[in-house]
Amino acid sequence: MKKFKKIGILGRPSSPHIAETLQRLTDYLLTDDYEITLEKDIAPMLPNNKLRVVPCNIIGQYANLVIVIGGDGSMLGAARVLAGSDVPVLGINRGTLGFLTDVSIDQVEQQIAEVLQGNYSVEKRFLLEIELINNGKISNKSSALNEIVLHQGRFSKMIEFELFINDQFVMSQKSDGIIIATPTGSTAYALSAGGPIMHPSLNAVSLIPICPHTLSSRPLVVDGDSHFTIKTSITKDICAQISCDGQVFLNSGPGDEMHIRKKKETLLLIHPLKYSYYETCRNKLSWGHALGKSNQTSG
Amino acid sequence: MKKFKKIGILGRPSSPHIAETLQRLTDYLLTDDYEITLEKDIAPMLPNNKLRVVPCNIIGQYANLVIVIGGDGSMLGAARVLAGSDVPVLGINRGTLGFLTDVSIDQVEQQIAEVLQGNYSVEKRFLLEIELINNGKISNKSSALNEIVLHQGRFSKMIEFELFINDQFVMSQKSDGIIIATPTGSTAYALSAGGPIMHPSLNAVSLIPICPHTLSSRPLVVDGDSHFTIKTSITKDICAQISCDGQVFLNSGPGDEMHIRKKKETLLLIHPLKYSYYETCRNKLSWGHALGKSNQTSG
Amino acid sequence: MKKFKKIGILGRPSSPHIAETLQRLTDYLLTDDYEITLEKDIAPMLPNNKLRVVPCNIIGQYANLVIVIGGDGSMLGAARVLAGSDVPVLGINRGTLGFLTDVSIDQVEQQIAEVLQGNYSVEKRFLLEIELINNGKISNKSSALNEIVLHQGRFSKMIEFELFINDQFVMSQKSDGIIIATPTGSTAYALSAGGPIMHPSLNAVSLIPICPHTLSSRPLVVDGDSHFTIKTSITKDICAQISCDGQVFLNSGPGDEMHIRKKKETLLLIHPLKYSYYETCRNKLSWGHALGKSNQTSG
Amino acid sequence: MKKFKKIGILGRPSSPHIAETLQRLTDYLLTDDYEITLEKDIAPMLPNNKLRVVPCNIIGQYANLVIVIGGDGSMLGAARVLAGSDVPVLGINRGTLGFLTDVSIDQVEQQIAEVLQGNYSVEKRFLLEIELINNGKISNKSSALNEIVLHQGRFSKMIEFELFINDQFVMSQKSDGIIIATPTGSTAYALSAGGPIMHPSLNAVSLIPICPHTLSSRPLVVDGDSHFTIKTSITKDICAQISCDGQVFLNSGPGDEMHIRKKKETLLLIHPLKYSYYETCRNKLSWGHALGKSNQTSG
Repeated sequence: MKKFKKIGILGRPSSPHIAETLQRLTDYLLTDDYEITLEKDIAPMLPNNKLRVVPCNIIGQYANLVIVIGGDGSMLGAARVLAGSDVPVLGINRGTLGFLTDVSIDQVEQQIAEVLQGNYSVEKRFLLEIELINNGKISNKSSALNEIVLHQGRFSKMIEFELFINDQFVMSQKSDGIIIATPTGSTAYALSAGGPIMHPSLNAVSLIPICPHTLSSRPLVVDGDSHFTIKTSITKDICAQISCDGQVFLNSGPGDEMHIRKKKETLLLIHPLKYSYYETCRNKLSWGHALGKSNQTSG
Repeated sequence: MKKFKKIGILGRPSSPHIAETLQRLTDYLLTDDYEITLEKDIAPMLPNNKLRVVPCNIIGQYANLVIVIGGDGSMLGAARVLAGSDVPVLGINRGTLGFLTDVSIDQVEQQIAEVLQGNYSVEKRFLLEIELINNGKISNKSSALNEIVLHQGRFSKMIEFELFINDQFVMSQKSDGIIIATPTGSTAYALSAGGPIMHPSLNAVSLIPICPHTLSSRPLVVDGDSHFTIKTSITKDICAQISCDGQVFLNSGPGDEMHIRKKKETLLLIHPLKYSYYETCRNKLSWGHALGKSNQTSG
Repeated sequence: MKKFKKIGILGRPSSPHIAETLQRLTDYLLTDDYEITLEKDIAPMLPNNKLRVVPCNIIGQYANLVIVIGGDGSMLGAARVLAGSDVPVLGINRGTLGFLTDVSIDQVEQQIAEVLQGNYSVEKRFLLEIELINNGKISNKSSALNEIVLHQGRFSKMIEFELFINDQFVMSQKSDGIIIATPTGSTAYALSAGGPIMHPSLNAVSLIPICPHTLSSRPLVVDGDSHFTIKTSITKDICAQISCDGQVFLNSGPGDEMHIRKKKETLLLIHPLKYSYYETCRNKLSWGHALGKSNQTSG
Repeated sequence: MKKFKKIGILGRPSSPHIAETLQRLTDYLLTDDYEITLEKDIAPMLPNNKLRVVPCNIIGQYANLVIVIGGDGSMLGAARVLAGSDVPVLGINRGTLGFLTDVSIDQVEQQIAEVLQGNYSVEKRFLLEIELINNGKISNKSSALNEIVLHQGRFSKMIEFELFINDQFVMSQKSDGIIIATPTGSTAYALSAGGPIMHPSLNAVSLIPICPHTLSSRPLVVDGDSHFTIKTSITKDICAQISCDGQVFLNSGPGDEMHIRKKKETLLLIHPLKYSYYETCRNKLSWGHALGKSNQTSG
């Protein structure tokens, strides 16, 4: 019996490679009578098809499994929509494998087949959610799989803010901003800013200052169930911006409060059985392979 | 009723300040009929006393509470001995407050009084333990509250090793060494080497490469219950050294295996009620104070 | 004979402290018949005075010496205007001493007296200038004493650009931006972004990537007489911004070219005789003092 | 007319690859009547040859050009011997190209031919020299092309020292050690410890703290003609070690003084005409290639 009878497909319609992969994937699925639903942005990449087409926000209702074609960026968008839907997600990477999209185009039929036969592992990845409070009212909210960033806005001026964790005052900081990252996001922007890599199974959140004025401001890792509050300085000329996964942007003014905590709903991420987190790290980050084998190093 | 009737005292007999603090502390405790036991190294600092004197490794048997006089270094030694004894430890700092020793000399009578009256918080801090395996046999073992370091030995040559976590191969690395740190140790040597600060309540361990050859080797944070295995390269001229809290040293030869995991026994660390971890961070690391207050910055 | 007969004074009219310092300074100078010219922004801080008031850009014409009251930020503005005028600049810091403003308010009369008596050292500090080329034409230009920054604009998206030094291709980079800093600027924003400290006498420029995607992108130090060209990627959705000393902002669009090189004119910076660059470093950066003396450390 | 008539060859006799390269190289040179002198360590790799064999320290007397077969490490040893001899050095890399050895084995005949025909560039690289002063007397001395390191000795204890530049006190530091690097060495060990990359043509020296206790201790770049003095703390239990290029080791005791300055003699390094420093950086450090071309990135 098929566990995943109804398959949703989405992705960013960015390149001919996507179209080709989409064609191969749907050909493969249709020969085996899977019920396919396409997300509306990617649908035009498969001309003259007679498949059901729905918007992203309801694709979870038409699928037992959603396949994302693209890079890690496409997965982030899918994650924010599908978190909490009980529909797991599998990523096909159009180029070099990503941290989230670990089926390669070369092996798409073979690896999809394995997953559809029930040979896969499934991981829960948590998201963060943010509520922006303005004059005591929630003015905006969003969520993120990788990270929420408070960042200087226009004119590249340092921002100044106070950070509280579980209502305890932690510090005030002058910096270009601060990154609040999940383990999933720890290998993305947070890594570029000097943050540590956190294993995806760890229930922790990292806080990474971006170019802090005080040199001893360092990455901080705390319990994943913490509640974070950031209050920007009430100074007229500070204009800050909040970014969720680098894809959703909220504006913030002086005196705003950000409340960030773990989202109750998680993302179900599917991997082929041969998946190894550390192997992905070795490949993406040029870490050394087992001794005796060839070993790419720099410097 | 007194909860802590029997008090053990230890510390490094390093300076006249220690003697003075010891005198004040014992004077204070004796006026209230506490039963005092001195550790044998510190005992000579209090001449002509008639107190019981015992070696460090059994002081836990004569005390409901051990008070450490000194700096964080003195606490590390006490921790390795007292972990698992059910006897909590309180630290008096002879100079600037430390991360582990948070009663100041100025307020010693007052803050000790508060603790003895039952006004304190108690924290469990975990330790790491290491077994060194040579030709399949345990050749040495030790434990650490802060960190276990595998480090190049003489002649400052890079070492090369393989790291496994829960028997999964993570990477091979050429570097000056690697630090495996607890949250407690995350503000000590691990911080100097670029590691993140981890809140003491987090069940996590960080792995920090020291001057790695591959620039993308970065600090890694994983579950505190992981089992770490490090295998040094079987190359004749590598001579590595293992250090526990910078106080206990084990030599390691080519092909040795280190097995590191959380020690079953924990340290019970006592704090005065006003203790705040983040306040200690702000003071020790010059982090910014609440906005509106004066704010020391650098740069 | 007085070397500096005509004194210009400028500063940011930001606080009562400035007014008080201005009053003390002018009182002192007037008792000794110096000819004072005030810059027009600071002039209102000294009500009912009968001094000459001129705009910043011509104050150099009315002075043999310009005294800046404020912090390092005020000095940056003065530097861009006075570079090349042969009029040296001296900084009075209203708070803690800066890297550029090294006369303290406490000792203003005494230290100014010493300088006016000829007891001072003078240093040449070089600036950078930037020409922004758009469709082959110079669309904008500016200069900077500390640093020129190419930075992501709105929406916190990574920018992508190519860097050339003396027309040699160096690399392409995806990052939040890049800082091109003088030795003077090496202790300012460049330091927060991980750049090295360069002694002010060094004829060198540092290039510091901000949160680069490629982890092995590292600070680069090259000859101060190099010519730098940065070409942003011709991608529609990149919106970059150029910042000079964090005070002057230029917008940049896809395909723009930035040409940066040393400005021909230098700033003449005056220090009291007791000035020591490394002492400023020790004070501002909490570096260790001579052994035997007290030594502030963190961690 | 041949500019380089007499060719010296040296290298580390470490692998069969070296023997094969040596055979190809000598075959090539002998067909064109070059006069070859082998260094005595490498000579046994070419059995039954009738070439002149001399020790390393006098090979400069028998050659107009010395060819080094091996990696950057072999070049470092040659550099310390040949600096100041007017005999230029060319490096053949047995594996991936290095920063110093930029002729590849694949193209050895072709690229050597070009150089011998006069098609090459020559670069001067400066070295550092150290004198170790003990009780006022020079107890030891050595030199280095890459870096001189003061490093903790056995037992991985922090060392403490004072740094002076041109007799000006800079700071005291507690750390694992300090690296004093040339531009040539800035892409070697100094880079692993967080130092900046310095272009080889820059007359500068960088000082990089290794795991400093004070977090605001940062890499410092100063004029290449500076005179550096390091005085270790007179504390009995400090045992420091000095390393030159990771190849020559000097022991240092409490109270020793190290005097480091630029060596008067330079190394003449020969490159094929197509050599580009930044191309080497891109290849060794995975920097981005020109946009439009493929671009390896991590993260």
